[in-house]
Amino acid sequence: MAKLYLLPNLLSESPWQNVLPSYNAEVINQIRHFIVEDIRNARRFLKKVNRETDIDSLTFMELNKHTPEMQKNGYLDYIQQGFDVGIISEAGCPGVADPGAEMVKIAYRRGMTVVPLVGPSSILLALMASGMNGQSFAFTGYLPVKKPDRLKRIQQLERQAVQQKQSQIFMETPYRNNHLLNDLLATCQPGTSLCIAADITSENQMIRTRTIADWKKQKPDLEKKPVIFILGS
Amino acid sequence: MAKLYLLPNLLSESPWQNVLPSYNAEVINQIRHFIVEDIRNARRFLKKVNRETDIDSLTFMELNKHTPEMQKNGYLDYIQQGFDVGIISEAGCPGVADPGAEMVKIAYRRGMTVVPLVGPSSILLALMASGMNGQSFAFTGYLPVKKPDRLKRIQQLERQAVQQKQSQIFMETPYRNNHLLNDLLATCQPGTSLCIAADITSENQMIRTRTIADWKKQKPDLEKKPVIFILGS
Repeated sequence: MAKLYLLPNLLSESPWQNVLPSYNAEVINQIRHFIVEDIRNARRFLKKVNRETDIDSLTFMELNKHTPEMQKNGYLDYIQQGFDVGIISEAGCPGVADPGAEMVKIAYRRGMTVVPLVGPSSILLALMASGMNGQSFAFTGYLPVKKPDRLKRIQQLERQAVQQKQSQIFMETPYRNNHLLNDLLATCQPGTSLCIAADITSENQMIRTRTIADWKKQKPDLEKKPVIFILGS
Repeated sequence: MAKLYLLPNLLSESPWQNVLPSYNAEVINQIRHFIVEDIRNARRFLKKVNRETDIDSLTFMELNKHTPEMQKNGYLDYIQQGFDVGIISEAGCPGVADPGAEMVKIAYRRGMTVVPLVGPSSILLALMASGMNGQSFAFTGYLPVKKPDRLKRIQQLERQAVQQKQSQIFMETPYRNNHLLNDLLATCQPGTSLCIAADITSENQMIRTRTIADWKKQKPDLEKKPVIFILGS
């Protein structure tokens, strides 16, 4: 029976062998139909994993928040016809903070089998390397953009992190990272721990957990870098 | 400079090439000092990744919740002396729901570099394949053992999952899985979605999301299987 494969993408320019099992390449080589967030990005990824791939013989189906429900449903007809279909997100693992989850829902409604493959997740790698509570954690995506809402949300996250010992993972669009860092340093208690995980899996990877007081002494420049933030105790 | 590597372990009897990048094997082959949860398990893992390894020439340092702080601190002296050290947990990714996090904390206090490698995480793989909200999720570990506390906790998790659209990930010791499933089916609303992810990465992998009402019609036997549960909407 054909299946829906969730195929993690790279997070950086690192060689794919650093972050993907060789099995992923085997699976990818057998798939001809791909649901992708961005076609150019997906082509580049597939070419990287296998230089011999005849990209023009593959079928790409675009998936974003504007894709109509009926079209999404149609994408899975290939599976019913006996062809495996792979989902590739723009970076990292499909289904985590991206539109792939919608496709998985439809697949279950149609009784299909979904197979997640192992790959790099900036959320998970940051949590592993944070030294913070991994028995209890929450990922909340992006914080509110408006300053008063954002500061309130930071205080809320800090309370949950410190009082309930639930590590709080969040992120920001790269060009606003330095603003978020400033807000965190201004809002949180000096003794609260903050993990900053930047450029994960790249040559410039910088992951470190320090207290707010210590970060104030040595503030990194996070401009334009992909960063995961974690508040903990 | 020597570093502290976080080395994911396997989740099942699958070949390591299915779930670990080849880079992990390269890194492992260069490390002689390992901090491990269980020495027999770690030896077996290292032998699997490289049959040529001379296991008896390696140094193993045991880490569990009874390991004294001073001893943990001593484990990292090797790094100061210029030797890379690797942490291997019993299954999956070090630092997530295991004692590795404590070592990472100490490493940062001593100004060391921590490098997380990619590998299988049952929590992440289940979330990917659940089709549930991956923009907002929480992992809460084990539910309370006492029935009244447990039922109350299930209701609380369901409220957070449905009303706040925060996917709720949790687990149970394998021999209590069927009890937990019964409690979930008896406590939650018929329309609430439940993902059951059993035997992840093994040949018997079963991952499926259904409503509580649908699970009631076809109840799987989860006895003795490693399972991740996710409540969502």
